[in-house]
Amino acid sequence: MSQSRLTELTWREVRRAGEEGIALLPIGSQEQHASHLPMGTDTLLVEEVVDRALDMLAREAGPGVVRLPALPFGHSPHHLFAAAVSLSAATLGAVLDDILDSLVTSGYRRIMVVNGHGGNDEIMRLAVKRFALRSPVTVAACSYWTLTAGEEGAGRPDVTPGHAGWFETSLMLAAHPDLVRTPVPARAPVEPPPLFDAPPYPGLTVERHGEWERVGGSTDDAADADATRGDRLLEDRARGLARAIQAFDAASRSPR
Amino acid sequence: MSQSRLTELTWREVRRAGEEGIALLPIGSQEQHASHLPMGTDTLLVEEVVDRALDMLAREAGPGVVRLPALPFGHSPHHLFAAAVSLSAATLGAVLDDILDSLVTSGYRRIMVVNGHGGNDEIMRLAVKRFALRSPVTVAACSYWTLTAGEEGAGRPDVTPGHAGWFETSLMLAAHPDLVRTPVPARAPVEPPPLFDAPPYPGLTVERHGEWERVGGSTDDAADADATRGDRLLEDRARGLARAIQAFDAASRSPR
Amino acid sequence: MSQSRLTELTWREVRRAGEEGIALLPIGSQEQHASHLPMGTDTLLVEEVVDRALDMLAREAGPGVVRLPALPFGHSPHHLFAAAVSLSAATLGAVLDDILDSLVTSGYRRIMVVNGHGGNDEIMRLAVKRFALRSPVTVAACSYWTLTAGEEGAGRPDVTPGHAGWFETSLMLAAHPDLVRTPVPARAPVEPPPLFDAPPYPGLTVERHGEWERVGGSTDDAADADATRGDRLLEDRARGLARAIQAFDAASRSPR
Amino acid sequence: MSQSRLTELTWREVRRAGEEGIALLPIGSQEQHASHLPMGTDTLLVEEVVDRALDMLAREAGPGVVRLPALPFGHSPHHLFAAAVSLSAATLGAVLDDILDSLVTSGYRRIMVVNGHGGNDEIMRLAVKRFALRSPVTVAACSYWTLTAGEEGAGRPDVTPGHAGWFETSLMLAAHPDLVRTPVPARAPVEPPPLFDAPPYPGLTVERHGEWERVGGSTDDAADADATRGDRLLEDRARGLARAIQAFDAASRSPR
Amino acid sequence: MSQSRLTELTWREVRRAGEEGIALLPIGSQEQHASHLPMGTDTLLVEEVVDRALDMLAREAGPGVVRLPALPFGHSPHHLFAAAVSLSAATLGAVLDDILDSLVTSGYRRIMVVNGHGGNDEIMRLAVKRFALRSPVTVAACSYWTLTAGEEGAGRPDVTPGHAGWFETSLMLAAHPDLVRTPVPARAPVEPPPLFDAPPYPGLTVERHGEWERVGGSTDDAADADATRGDRLLEDRARGLARAIQAFDAASRSPR
Amino acid sequence: MSQSRLTELTWREVRRAGEEGIALLPIGSQEQHASHLPMGTDTLLVEEVVDRALDMLAREAGPGVVRLPALPFGHSPHHLFAAAVSLSAATLGAVLDDILDSLVTSGYRRIMVVNGHGGNDEIMRLAVKRFALRSPVTVAACSYWTLTAGEEGAGRPDVTPGHAGWFETSLMLAAHPDLVRTPVPARAPVEPPPLFDAPPYPGLTVERHGEWERVGGSTDDAADADATRGDRLLEDRARGLARAIQAFDAASRSPR
Repeated sequence: MSQSRLTELTWREVRRAGEEGIALLPIGSQEQHASHLPMGTDTLLVEEVVDRALDMLAREAGPGVVRLPALPFGHSPHHLFAAAVSLSAATLGAVLDDILDSLVTSGYRRIMVVNGHGGNDEIMRLAVKRFALRSPVTVAACSYWTLTAGEEGAGRPDVTPGHAGWFETSLMLAAHPDLVRTPVPARAPVEPPPLFDAPPYPGLTVERHGEWERVGGSTDDAADADATRGDRLLEDRARGLARAIQAFDAASRSPR
Repeated sequence: MSQSRLTELTWREVRRAGEEGIALLPIGSQEQHASHLPMGTDTLLVEEVVDRALDMLAREAGPGVVRLPALPFGHSPHHLFAAAVSLSAATLGAVLDDILDSLVTSGYRRIMVVNGHGGNDEIMRLAVKRFALRSPVTVAACSYWTLTAGEEGAGRPDVTPGHAGWFETSLMLAAHPDLVRTPVPARAPVEPPPLFDAPPYPGLTVERHGEWERVGGSTDDAADADATRGDRLLEDRARGLARAIQAFDAASRSPR
Repeated sequence: MSQSRLTELTWREVRRAGEEGIALLPIGSQEQHASHLPMGTDTLLVEEVVDRALDMLAREAGPGVVRLPALPFGHSPHHLFAAAVSLSAATLGAVLDDILDSLVTSGYRRIMVVNGHGGNDEIMRLAVKRFALRSPVTVAACSYWTLTAGEEGAGRPDVTPGHAGWFETSLMLAAHPDLVRTPVPARAPVEPPPLFDAPPYPGLTVERHGEWERVGGSTDDAADADATRGDRLLEDRARGLARAIQAFDAASRSPR
Repeated sequence: MSQSRLTELTWREVRRAGEEGIALLPIGSQEQHASHLPMGTDTLLVEEVVDRALDMLAREAGPGVVRLPALPFGHSPHHLFAAAVSLSAATLGAVLDDILDSLVTSGYRRIMVVNGHGGNDEIMRLAVKRFALRSPVTVAACSYWTLTAGEEGAGRPDVTPGHAGWFETSLMLAAHPDLVRTPVPARAPVEPPPLFDAPPYPGLTVERHGEWERVGGSTDDAADADATRGDRLLEDRARGLARAIQAFDAASRSPR
Repeated sequence: MSQSRLTELTWREVRRAGEEGIALLPIGSQEQHASHLPMGTDTLLVEEVVDRALDMLAREAGPGVVRLPALPFGHSPHHLFAAAVSLSAATLGAVLDDILDSLVTSGYRRIMVVNGHGGNDEIMRLAVKRFALRSPVTVAACSYWTLTAGEEGAGRPDVTPGHAGWFETSLMLAAHPDLVRTPVPARAPVEPPPLFDAPPYPGLTVERHGEWERVGGSTDDAADADATRGDRLLEDRARGLARAIQAFDAASRSPR
Repeated sequence: MSQSRLTELTWREVRRAGEEGIALLPIGSQEQHASHLPMGTDTLLVEEVVDRALDMLAREAGPGVVRLPALPFGHSPHHLFAAAVSLSAATLGAVLDDILDSLVTSGYRRIMVVNGHGGNDEIMRLAVKRFALRSPVTVAACSYWTLTAGEEGAGRPDVTPGHAGWFETSLMLAAHPDLVRTPVPARAPVEPPPLFDAPPYPGLTVERHGEWERVGGSTDDAADADATRGDRLLEDRARGLARAIQAFDAASRSPR
């Protein structure tokens, strides 16, 4: 089998690939990433992880995957105060519905959505649930940072991926060093910490009006971000995605 | 301060309570819960947890909470094969939008949604995010089973809450024993286990068409369900919710 | 046959009941009812009438009815100036569509909607018309106050049901005396009377911006409200509903 | 003051007329009216009644009215089995919203909708309620047959207006005799009578799938329809509308 | 074959005509046309052209056409500053969808939409494309001014149809001289000319906020408008439409 | 001034660029382009033209332009029979609305949409009209093939751009020769020619169900496509776009 890009295939190749293969849709965002990272960070990183994962699969004769062009816009209403280009939840949901419906019309029965932006998460999950209810498909969804091959040791336990902080900056230093404005400025902790990141009680989600503006747009200090550790983190996520694709292939290939 | 039910208050009392108090909306579902639990299980359990929590707060002179009537219908399209009464995601989202907007019109600035049904989760999260963006509020959301006071020892590590299994059956034996059909029949493991419950790779969400029907509607064996442990679990969740309310009150009362 | 509550049935019982039985959905509201009645008055009263009617049918071996949980929220945009919790017309219509579609999916072919709030009326009528066009069902709708067994003598010809006035207060004094703030204050007539209640020409509906606020939220004086007459009125409406259910059963059972 | 047609006015005349005047929108339908009446019956009759009423007002120096062109399409999904041209309820509601919003943008504060088709009724009522809530207007709605000057004696107590029966046929014989196919065929009563016209219990609305098709498309026998009585009925409705307009003018002119 | 008006036909005649015939829907607008033309100009002109064309076809034994009543309201948001009665694009699209769907339900397989207002153009085109995709039909759309029989010599090369200028005024002087306010006032050129009419580069569409208001509501000077040339232009457009109908009939009659 | 890519800028750079600059959004499609061109042809070509145009402007110190990432999906329902990935018209319209609204929120007052796919045309035009009505902006729209610098001589008068024919194939041979499957197969003319491409009467748009499938997916023979002429055509369109941007800049910079 093979890895290919839908945008480069003829329609008959797309059809043929859909008989056995998996369609994979990356989704990202265009939104503020503090003063040192570019607007497209989430899109660039999800594309990087997907590219590396598909390269790994190609070397391993993995399952055939047709990669769709990344959707470069996501759901970022909380960043509209800072120049985001944002789709509403309804619009993003409709885009996903239309793309997924198109793929099933073309014969695909196994589809993955790989997400690069936290704000897309619930919308993606609802879309794949809707899709599996209305069509005879098996569909998977993930955000790239939640997959790991478990080999790294490069992460920092005190830093969840966050936004425009140590994690994303390290990855960008590895993947697109020319797009990171250096030196990355230090950032003092905000008091109280943002409620969306530090809920007052475990298990409780809290949203406060104006919170992103109050905390200045990032979750943690990125001054110590590190390209080497960023590259190891990227490799780990890419390998995690490659293994997830293989596991999805195995689980969805089995006759029911 | 005090705990009250919106349905029993006059409108001026509702207004007055909104100046300082917290509005709390429970949401549930009407859906299949195997052959031994009733359709309203999720609604009944979230109401039970909320009632117990508000009683605890009343004894502790906790923050004032106005409890709205529970929304008895939720998003259960995956159970429509088995007599669910289900709102679409768009409908449930619109109901939450309308209720939240009504409350802010009445002067409320601090609102909680407490959920009793897994299928409502993403819709509730999107609704509270939307709400905090368009209105000057602080809003919290949780599913009752994710809150804990950490005191229990009654749970079973091998059982996540699940659906119509040991956890929910134990709670119902404690809260509404007359509504549990006993003896609860044993249930053999399903092979392969449902993809929604046992994803092929950690961090990957997978949805397969017809999966709920294939696995028979429950996630695990409920034959050993136990009223005593159910009661301890209920107490723990109720205390967790009471503490979460207090923490939310403290975090959202502080001037910004 | 028998009367049962959907929330307490297992899904197989719901299915079985739908083969012959009637599903009944009460809908209410949460809205201002002047300074002496609670927000949930409409929901409480429609539940009271339905409960009494189903008790009568149970004693008479009437047709099998599965009662859904009442929808506690209705369409009350005209009361948003006074702390209503209101669903928009589009939202309420979608809720009714979703519930009715769920019931037909579960096998029900005969469904009734019983309404407790004037503002829901047109939305309910449109919903049942839509439903009967798209599904092979017979569906009935009514507002509880329009049904009568004709035995009462307890009503006052000068008082149509109205809002938060003599009629509703009398019913609440009979059904939920603890929730009525007494003594009920007298209320002088408003001049000019509200256009929605006293149209300038018979057969003309007139709506004026701000009219509910102008007239203070009720249609007539409730100071003379009377628990005994309220109870007779409730009995009459309940018997009217019981007879309407029997008539609906006879009309919809007949082969076509 | 004067009566005019919006379609013939320049925009400055429309603006000027809106400062004091009333805008009047007729709405009709295109739907089956049995084998003897044309599709446009409802539109033609509402236009006839409005024309006569505005002529009466012109002779009496009544309030200024700007008549919009009639909306020739209505909500007739129950007649789609028989060549109706029907707008969905959502579409018709949106049309009314857009027209009413346009008028308030042009400066109108007093607006009437006059309806010629039963199926439009609830949608019209919801639209005027919505409109009065969102805009500083007084707005009236009626169906032409519900207004009467009380002078007639021409009607038949056993015949409510109905559909394509004695009433509508008599009016069409008076207003558009050339469009009535004569002799009008007799029509035997249908057994059982249509549930939408003869509910099984007073106050209960019942809709049954396929009922209009079953009963053949009309409510009562039109063979005895009579042009002279039709003309008296038209005059009575027109005078009723003229008086209603005057009453609406008086009620809505008064300062609040 | 024959030309007829749907509004005057019985439903069986509508059905029968649909087996072979073409349904034709005119659509217009109610919007400002400067100080000398009436609001309904676009509707009146499209009706005039359609009437003349159908008369020509009747004399030539052309294909059978059933003319629907004109939709008198269109999409004119750019004229809301000047008393337009405007449907939103979504509403107008829904109206067209509903009408077209009704016609195919009635058996029509060949349908034309004839437009009188520039602002409706894209919406009409999208609607007919949607329709041909979802239904087994052949459907045509045009704006009356783009069709010509090529015989005229009456037009002015320097004047595209425009809005409320020489072209429309000449046509109205021919068709409805009583509705033109004369003498038509002269109008100096606006500098810079409106961007919507004179784009800065060929092939580029440019829209500027407030442009219609800035240029005073018309595109060119109408002082020299001429009834005789207007009549020749009308005849040419009508003949163009008649020929287009014949060509559409020939193209869509042929078996596929 | 300068040309930049939004995806590579920080949010403060995006804000600053918006004070004077122009935002430019390319939109494309993923749809069948016969057996020799790839699915992404429209997206690839619009990106090529935009890149060349911005390079020209950079050399000429043209106005500052911030290029957004291309929307890689468009409205292609007519190609769903052949593996298109298509957004519905409503979805694409919502995407454009959301992007345009985001840009105005970020301070942009001058925006261009450059289109690469015919099926997007009406939707783009409606979107920019809506946008200019609701926001204080000047907004331009074009499809890349309609702009020309007039210098070419490379085109073929008998070939309008068409679909997957001589024009697009020549451009792809120039821009992405590796993605064209050669030799390009010859294609005999289809009889009758497709109605969407050859309307039966000038000025009439005709859509027939199934027409794209009948004609095999392309409009004309591409066997003679030529890379050299394709390159000259690309240069001409790019120069046309560069000049259009300059003209738009001049027209929209001028104070109003």
